[in-house]
Amino acid sequence: MTLQEIGAAAKQASVIMNRMTVNEKNAGLSAVAKALVANASRIIAANDKDIAEAKKNQMSEALLDRLRLTEERIEGMAEGIRQVVALADPVGEVISMKTTPSGLQIGQKRVPMGVIGIIYESRPNVTADAFALCFKTGNAVILRGGSDAIYSNTAICEVIREALQSEGLPADAIQVLQDTSRETAQEFMRLNQYMDLLIPRGGAGLIRTVVEKSTVPVIETGTGNCHIYVDESADIEMAVNIIVNAKTQRLGVCNACESLVIHEAVAKEAIPAICQALYEHQVEIRGDEIARQYDEKIVPATEEDFGKEYLDRIISMKVVPDIDAAIAHINTYNTGHSEAIITKDYGNSMRFLNEIDAAAVYVNASTRFTDGFEFGFGAEIGISTQKLHARGPMGLLALTSTKYIILGNGQIRK
Amino acid sequence: MTLQEIGAAAKQASVIMNRMTVNEKNAGLSAVAKALVANASRIIAANDKDIAEAKKNQMSEALLDRLRLTEERIEGMAEGIRQVVALADPVGEVISMKTTPSGLQIGQKRVPMGVIGIIYESRPNVTADAFALCFKTGNAVILRGGSDAIYSNTAICEVIREALQSEGLPADAIQVLQDTSRETAQEFMRLNQYMDLLIPRGGAGLIRTVVEKSTVPVIETGTGNCHIYVDESADIEMAVNIIVNAKTQRLGVCNACESLVIHEAVAKEAIPAICQALYEHQVEIRGDEIARQYDEKIVPATEEDFGKEYLDRIISMKVVPDIDAAIAHINTYNTGHSEAIITKDYGNSMRFLNEIDAAAVYVNASTRFTDGFEFGFGAEIGISTQKLHARGPMGLLALTSTKYIILGNGQIRK
Repeated sequence: MTLQEIGAAAKQASVIMNRMTVNEKNAGLSAVAKALVANASRIIAANDKDIAEAKKNQMSEALLDRLRLTEERIEGMAEGIRQVVALADPVGEVISMKTTPSGLQIGQKRVPMGVIGIIYESRPNVTADAFALCFKTGNAVILRGGSDAIYSNTAICEVIREALQSEGLPADAIQVLQDTSRETAQEFMRLNQYMDLLIPRGGAGLIRTVVEKSTVPVIETGTGNCHIYVDESADIEMAVNIIVNAKTQRLGVCNACESLVIHEAVAKEAIPAICQALYEHQVEIRGDEIARQYDEKIVPATEEDFGKEYLDRIISMKVVPDIDAAIAHINTYNTGHSEAIITKDYGNSMRFLNEIDAAAVYVNASTRFTDGFEFGFGAEIGISTQKLHARGPMGLLALTSTKYIILGNGQIRK
Repeated sequence: MTLQEIGAAAKQASVIMNRMTVNEKNAGLSAVAKALVANASRIIAANDKDIAEAKKNQMSEALLDRLRLTEERIEGMAEGIRQVVALADPVGEVISMKTTPSGLQIGQKRVPMGVIGIIYESRPNVTADAFALCFKTGNAVILRGGSDAIYSNTAICEVIREALQSEGLPADAIQVLQDTSRETAQEFMRLNQYMDLLIPRGGAGLIRTVVEKSTVPVIETGTGNCHIYVDESADIEMAVNIIVNAKTQRLGVCNACESLVIHEAVAKEAIPAICQALYEHQVEIRGDEIARQYDEKIVPATEEDFGKEYLDRIISMKVVPDIDAAIAHINTYNTGHSEAIITKDYGNSMRFLNEIDAAAVYVNASTRFTDGFEFGFGAEIGISTQKLHARGPMGLLALTSTKYIILGNGQIRK
């Protein structure tokens, strides 16, 4: 099939999906969850081919682990889909309806986007997760995964399509691009005729390419150079506790803390305490000149360090003279993801909340909470770091658009 | 100034603007309205240069009229700004705030976008209109108008900057690109480092170019191939009345009706009545074979006619066997703007509302109502025909983003 044909098939499926009731969508998702478990061995057999190929290409053990599917992981995928069944469907809600002076009733109704494209890297569980969220909101999805996971993704897609068909639902609600070449990916990013939204999920390079090349509207997800600012009035014990959690609770995630900003008035007390706690977790600290005066094991930071998302046991540290400098530093280097202040001062907490330009701004809490589940959305398609349409964790609502519905009885414009 | 410098200046202004109170913003806007009127002769003198240039280049009288500024039009610009003063500012509203089981308070707050770019064609009043809406929502704006209006736009911009400065507000809240070359426009569309949103306002060609070339998130505005479907059960008199209004009340607007779809069961009664009424307004009708059986003056329509936004005294007409064919025809040819059904049938009205894929879907009313003022927003920056972020008429709310604010007392993630 050509990309045009794939796009047309998705569009056609989306028209049928737009008419589906929540009961029908939930029945489809339940059938899919069941089918994934029932076909686990078939999916694992396909995954084995990807794993064999990846080993031949000397893939690292960490990446192999992300790629590998087991019965337990497939059960996890099915469980994720069952959780989506349990979520409320935002589609169909009429947000507001007003009557104009001439008697027109004007309302705004939530509707599916239509066709959503997702470009992602090697974790094959994204195939099932993304499908479930798109399906629940009445959107057809076209998935372009990495070549590393093509057998796994194709097998998962086939199982889902069969399950949908057996329920009398449109199989083209999900399609996986078989051609994983870069050329096809670039053509995919320009499929405006059929595609309403494109979401890249993956590393900074992938996201940059999609933003650069796509003519379809994009929601930029992810990279997080997240800061914690320890204010003059901070409770140092709380600061240490939150910093350790935000840096070490999980290293490779976008809401992990990558950068510390310390008010100089508390540097003497805070820096040794923070360093000691982080060293216990084998974290390397790269600090500026002033920071290094308080702990000799701090490695000198380069300019590049302050802008870096390490995703590793490394953190940068900057000492500032006041909150203005802290806000300026964070607004210069952050990636618009999650930023926290540790403070007892009301005025400074307000300034931080108002002036930091990011999707999620925290007072006295760990940046690790920026997550669709923690925010109570029940699921997440990604975390938006752009300001258009959706910002922060994206749940089902981010996959919907609106439409004005206007009910009249013959009104014309004067 | 280079584009980088312009971007950086706008960004810096946006930081200050983010801290401005509504009172400060309104004081700035009032000062601007006053200054525009006080400096009318200076603006008209600049406009005279554009007009002289345009005449030299044989600009058509219609376009000259769009370009021309008079005292009355400048008073109109000032009045538009005063109306924006009167509007409620959506910035700062906390849409929702919930407390999680661990005691975190998570809220979503409306915030300015930051820096907004606008690319537009020759009407210089857009300079003041767009500034006012952006300023009210705390956004700095960079305007790239056409070379035709460069003297007018620059003069308006200067007057606004002086007024802001006299109020102690940042002049860089508005900047007009002096270099109107295509190369600079293309570089402008890639100013992601500083610009959060780009809105093209103008013809289909301009919008296509911006969607094609921009890496900054875009809201596509405008073109409207709007349909009116006369259902089997339509009140024919109401249909005629609405069609005449939607086609002829104003010709050159995106919410004007460009295409009629007629159920064959009422063709015999409806077509002659519609034709007669439209002929009285000198409208040419281009119809399919079946339509032409009912009125010999109907010109044969080509495939191209059904997809065309005429913005002129021309309309296309298609006869369909049932509502399914009507919906399919409209969803094939529409541009996602405004579509109407004329019907007495409950089921068909519901199907039309649910299944037509457009920003505004009407039952028994003229498509001409799709407009920020008519919808009660008090102002309009354009009409979005895309599904991301904003769909339909865009008021102040469309120029805002949101930010999560999270208030804790030491919470860490388990």
